[in-house]
Amino acid sequence: MKALVYHGPGQKALEERPKPQIEASGDAIVKIVKTTICGTDLHILKGDVATCAPGRILGHEGVGIIDSVGAGVTAFQPGDRVLISCISSCGKCDYCRRGLYSHCTTGGWILGNEIDGTQAEYVRTPHADTSLYRIPAGADEEALVMLSDILPTGFECGVLNGKVEPGSTVAIVGAGPIGLAALLTAQFYAPGDIIMIDLDDNRLDVARRFGATHTINSGDGKAAEAVKALTGGIGVDTAIEAVGIPATFLLCEDIVAPGGVIANVGVHGVKVDLHLERLWAHNITITTRLVDTVTTPMLLKTVQSKKLDPLQLITHRFTLDHILDAYDTFSRAADTKALKVIVSA
Amino acid sequence: MKALVYHGPGQKALEERPKPQIEASGDAIVKIVKTTICGTDLHILKGDVATCAPGRILGHEGVGIIDSVGAGVTAFQPGDRVLISCISSCGKCDYCRRGLYSHCTTGGWILGNEIDGTQAEYVRTPHADTSLYRIPAGADEEALVMLSDILPTGFECGVLNGKVEPGSTVAIVGAGPIGLAALLTAQFYAPGDIIMIDLDDNRLDVARRFGATHTINSGDGKAAEAVKALTGGIGVDTAIEAVGIPATFLLCEDIVAPGGVIANVGVHGVKVDLHLERLWAHNITITTRLVDTVTTPMLLKTVQSKKLDPLQLITHRFTLDHILDAYDTFSRAADTKALKVIVSA
Repeated sequence: MKALVYHGPGQKALEERPKPQIEASGDAIVKIVKTTICGTDLHILKGDVATCAPGRILGHEGVGIIDSVGAGVTAFQPGDRVLISCISSCGKCDYCRRGLYSHCTTGGWILGNEIDGTQAEYVRTPHADTSLYRIPAGADEEALVMLSDILPTGFECGVLNGKVEPGSTVAIVGAGPIGLAALLTAQFYAPGDIIMIDLDDNRLDVARRFGATHTINSGDGKAAEAVKALTGGIGVDTAIEAVGIPATFLLCEDIVAPGGVIANVGVHGVKVDLHLERLWAHNITITTRLVDTVTTPMLLKTVQSKKLDPLQLITHRFTLDHILDAYDTFSRAADTKALKVIVSA
Repeated sequence: MKALVYHGPGQKALEERPKPQIEASGDAIVKIVKTTICGTDLHILKGDVATCAPGRILGHEGVGIIDSVGAGVTAFQPGDRVLISCISSCGKCDYCRRGLYSHCTTGGWILGNEIDGTQAEYVRTPHADTSLYRIPAGADEEALVMLSDILPTGFECGVLNGKVEPGSTVAIVGAGPIGLAALLTAQFYAPGDIIMIDLDDNRLDVARRFGATHTINSGDGKAAEAVKALTGGIGVDTAIEAVGIPATFLLCEDIVAPGGVIANVGVHGVKVDLHLERLWAHNITITTRLVDTVTTPMLLKTVQSKKLDPLQLITHRFTLDHILDAYDTFSRAADTKALKVIVSA
């Protein structure tokens, strides 16, 4: 089968690989219908993700059709159309039984990282019964690819951890796909103001179209002052960090109101300064989270009931034969205006 | 009247000052019966608290008797015996109406900081109706002095923010009065293990007597390894930081389990390193808080029902005439084994 393979920092290739086989009784083999590329795949290609070894097939998002299942799989059978979660969860370990699927002792984020992923014609999915979701009849499968990772990530790590509430003020730092996913799902909770902050005017235009009430281009280094001006000098109830660098986390420290929350979503490569000499008495909460995908069933219902339209996030479409072009388009988002790209297998 | 006055870094004196007068209709003048000294008073004397100007009477804890009240005070009258909260709250501003009394726009921690405090024969307490508590008949007034600050601080900033739960594992870094207050109040929620960490073996002995299940002297620099050994390599559900320096906060980052909470209680003078390059995917929560004293009524009930014995925290007693000796004893706690000192006016 064709597969996109990581060969160490800066190196990837589309090549022929053997079709995966059932290895454990809980496995399923899924024939990929649609997949996509994540910002995290670009992190891997920079060499930032030590757990991902050269030779790995990338990708942790997608929808597909069950090809075969192990003897222990009872929830799915060949021919079923399924959404693949970026998080594999056994459902049985102490972490899974608390809903902390991201820390499953035999799962978590392993697809396209510690085991081969979804940017291929077929993928082996461990713990299939508790890591795949049946696709509702009539659903738009491209839209559901957005539910493998970015929508639950923006929602759980940003909106839910950030305690977005009716009438509250929210700032989202970073208007990439994850920040936009937080923007879309924050609106479930009717916040008063949603302030979107980024360096890219195109993405800020998209944010306004997606429901941001205010946008700030932080290129002048005065974003904190601008947020304070918009909030009567107080700051925001929720600051969602959706970039993953020290400067954007520090901006969140500067704009969070007393009693507020900084919800970190970004994948960080280095430590940040936490200004406790100022924040110790500020009554704030800081959260971190690798998505658990506990809200996937809820998000499926919001898509079915048209409370959420994930198709808005898709800007480009490719076939698996042209996945190298898809990577090129996605990685040059400032030029190509790409948000999410769909790759059809 | 006699009062303990701050005269700039390293300087204090017991001197004669005019008795305070009613200045606003919500004020009360309280004749002090018992007060105490807080670690924060020592911070002021080091020059760490910029809001506290030379000439200020120190102290933000105490019990007393209402001497006079302003025209707007309806809940108290002269002769009433009252507990003075370290936090003054108007009860009317947006913060107060959310229970965030620490950020009251005309109150917060002002006593013995921005206005004259309780280490005197009399104190003026603004917003008396919503900042004083009636002392139940027959209550031990020395015990209640511990409810002005340290017990609500340990409880709200440590135990409640730390989400201590039945059967959970808790580490408290710092076995001073605040850490011990967290230890005492954590036991309301039946945690499984409470691991107390300090450099002072005497305080660790006290901690064991107060209910710690394990104690670790961190002098060897291997506290994190010791906590991991006690928790099956996983770390603790709740790490309470009750010191206020980078090393102890970093220890909390090292010992918090996936899904756990770091509840900061310590007063920090400098920034700390937050290792988001590791913690971004660790699903943790970090909280900061200046005590709101919203739990004072609850804590009063726990004292009355003997679920909490604050007298355990009191090691030394002085009269106001000898408050300089009280400061000396309290500030040399490693030698004197002082926890809290009572000063009778």
